[in-house]
Amino acid sequence: MKARITVTLKNGVLDPQGKAIEHALSGLGFDGVGQVRQGKVFDIELTATDKAKAEADLKAMCDKLLANTVIENYAVEIA
Amino acid sequence: MKARITVTLKNGVLDPQGKAIEHALSGLGFDGVGQVRQGKVFDIELTATDKAKAEADLKAMCDKLLANTVIENYAVEIA
Repeated sequence: MKARITVTLKNGVLDPQGKAIEHALSGLGFDGVGQVRQGKVFDIELTATDKAKAEADLKAMCDKLLANTVIENYAVEIA
Repeated sequence: MKARITVTLKNGVLDPQGKAIEHALSGLGFDGVGQVRQGKVFDIELTATDKAKAEADLKAMCDKLLANTVIENYAVEIA
């Protein structure tokens, strides 16, 4: 089973990396670019076949390791 | 218009960060975790209203700045 976890900064949390990308894009001549925010994505292969258990496991992985839930949100998708 | 760009490593490209996460997850007691690969996600706000032009612009942004197309793939989604 394959899963994708997307971790993004919560609204209101400053994202200097995103701001830098924003400036770089306008420097390259791309007009009309508003806010840019950068996040992370994890593609995880699981041997489990039980989708509900896999989802619970993935959420636990996010809470314990993959995301800082004080400043980040995460989304779990199972393919 | 909001868009999400996902940049992932191509198959066959070594991902030491993913490997480290794999080991950390098994160290935390998560069994049944196979390969882990990490990528990046960019959430971009665009003022453009023409979807086709926006998509072409986003692809150009990936080619020029956001992805290293030698070792990375990118996917563009427009919401």
